[in-house]
Amino acid sequence: MQRIHVIATGGTIEKVYSEQTGNVQNLDAKIDRYFRLLRLPDADIQVTHLMNKDSLEMTDSDRQLVLEAVRQKLKDPAPIVITHGTDTMIDTGLLLQKSLPDLQVPIVLTGAMTPLGFEASDGLQNLTESLFAARVLAPGVYIVMHNQPFPVDRARKDRELARFVWK
Amino acid sequence: MQRIHVIATGGTIEKVYSEQTGNVQNLDAKIDRYFRLLRLPDADIQVTHLMNKDSLEMTDSDRQLVLEAVRQKLKDPAPIVITHGTDTMIDTGLLLQKSLPDLQVPIVLTGAMTPLGFEASDGLQNLTESLFAARVLAPGVYIVMHNQPFPVDRARKDRELARFVWK
Amino acid sequence: MQRIHVIATGGTIEKVYSEQTGNVQNLDAKIDRYFRLLRLPDADIQVTHLMNKDSLEMTDSDRQLVLEAVRQKLKDPAPIVITHGTDTMIDTGLLLQKSLPDLQVPIVLTGAMTPLGFEASDGLQNLTESLFAARVLAPGVYIVMHNQPFPVDRARKDRELARFVWK
Amino acid sequence: MQRIHVIATGGTIEKVYSEQTGNVQNLDAKIDRYFRLLRLPDADIQVTHLMNKDSLEMTDSDRQLVLEAVRQKLKDPAPIVITHGTDTMIDTGLLLQKSLPDLQVPIVLTGAMTPLGFEASDGLQNLTESLFAARVLAPGVYIVMHNQPFPVDRARKDRELARFVWK
Repeated sequence: MQRIHVIATGGTIEKVYSEQTGNVQNLDAKIDRYFRLLRLPDADIQVTHLMNKDSLEMTDSDRQLVLEAVRQKLKDPAPIVITHGTDTMIDTGLLLQKSLPDLQVPIVLTGAMTPLGFEASDGLQNLTESLFAARVLAPGVYIVMHNQPFPVDRARKDRELARFVWK
Repeated sequence: MQRIHVIATGGTIEKVYSEQTGNVQNLDAKIDRYFRLLRLPDADIQVTHLMNKDSLEMTDSDRQLVLEAVRQKLKDPAPIVITHGTDTMIDTGLLLQKSLPDLQVPIVLTGAMTPLGFEASDGLQNLTESLFAARVLAPGVYIVMHNQPFPVDRARKDRELARFVWK
Repeated sequence: MQRIHVIATGGTIEKVYSEQTGNVQNLDAKIDRYFRLLRLPDADIQVTHLMNKDSLEMTDSDRQLVLEAVRQKLKDPAPIVITHGTDTMIDTGLLLQKSLPDLQVPIVLTGAMTPLGFEASDGLQNLTESLFAARVLAPGVYIVMHNQPFPVDRARKDRELARFVWK
Repeated sequence: MQRIHVIATGGTIEKVYSEQTGNVQNLDAKIDRYFRLLRLPDADIQVTHLMNKDSLEMTDSDRQLVLEAVRQKLKDPAPIVITHGTDTMIDTGLLLQKSLPDLQVPIVLTGAMTPLGFEASDGLQNLTESLFAARVLAPGVYIVMHNQPFPVDRARKDRELARFVWK
């Protein structure tokens, strides 16, 4: 049984539509419902709901909280998947990379361009890929989305194309 | 073969999520894609995309356009379904009721609280019910949503409950 | 609050795929899960799981059980929806029509060509239409599928077209 | 742009429900429709529909056809995903492993316990994982399903559990 930690921080992947306001917002955690759509018979998925923020609103101290949560999980090393808004995913990833020089497991940052459960969402694809990546990638910090693993210092978000590209 | 006219005016039912802005907006027509998910073997569905507006932004002249479109369809009478934002659906319906005293077919207004294709959307349910209602209801102007037909002058939107209730 | 009785008898609409045998069969009741996908705020849906059979395997005594269940519900009259295999849906409907000459509510038989939850299934459409039909149709026995209400003595299954047609 | 070859051979993942017979069978290719649900912006997916068979009906000469197709693709090496019935997936994989001692790319066999598009299907998860695995695994022959990569000589199908386990 492979333990995989999931640290949820919010972002588009967790946004929900509010019938009262007509907006999509980070109101409720939803990734757990989507994990249940996957078959993970030999995985022990441990989800920590750390915060639920649009990543444009994440502050330096929020990023420190993520780092602290990761450090906590690494005391008993197992791969880590972090769900995160795409706009500042690289910032958080670079902080982790810089702060954790002796990683023994992969840390995978993922998210979505369209919220989980909305038509044409890439959220479940990215979760699926990230949970797989967590098992097979070498130690390091990665962004995994749209069929690709990017070492975090090699990725750049292309807002127009709505995806990450190599830099 | 039963002809059913559909006049699309926008509203939440047609809203789409924009990956560039993170908002849901009336940008593209989408109901045609959802009609294709239904089996309508003995129906001749004629869709008119009249406008694509949040109904809070519909003006009096927009409502006149709806009335004119309906009058046009009624020259060769067949039931009419109008997709519409829920916030001012009753206003448009009351205008139709007042302006068309000698209706020989049902006019069914419908919409959605959550856009078509978003998780937990009521859009396809409401379209399904409305196309059925168009076949079986007596002449008159109705709101059809959530398993209920309301004569338009008997309905009130309860924003908190996110549905129509009897008044 | 409108009470609607649902009597489930099985048929394709309730078939499930078995990973052990690779067949689709009437093993578990599933319509309740699909009712939860619908918004029925003013309906009191009472589901009775009477049997779970391919309708080609229904016997005369099974049909008597359906008739008895219907008689039971009619003691306190409310509309009735019966989910049923399409192959002998008409037989059951004609028995009900003949045995219940003084109906005060509509009885709606429905089913599906493809099981609920399989791609391109018509099951949820038919359930949606039937629950609406149960509210609005005149007393009588009907088949409701694919946007159409058929009085039971006017319908014929066209196996090639996979739908009911007028006779 | 990463080229990934997909060789489709059938199996449960491609089975469709027939409304005429009520059976699920390998009648039409369907994986292409499901690839379109995935975002693969930097992948050049080349699909070859080699056969469409329940893998219990695959013969030795069918397996030779698979081997020949793989040899053909390997002339210009790129990772290969093979969709296949799970019952004899290991047999085909072992043949490939034995016949192709100098692999320079990963060959990933995948399939599904429930057909693509049926409720609770694992098909899209497995396709997603396999296309990712094709990018990141070392050269060799693997089975990838349910979040796990198995070297083909280490896997055993547990029919009761409906999954592969380590041997």
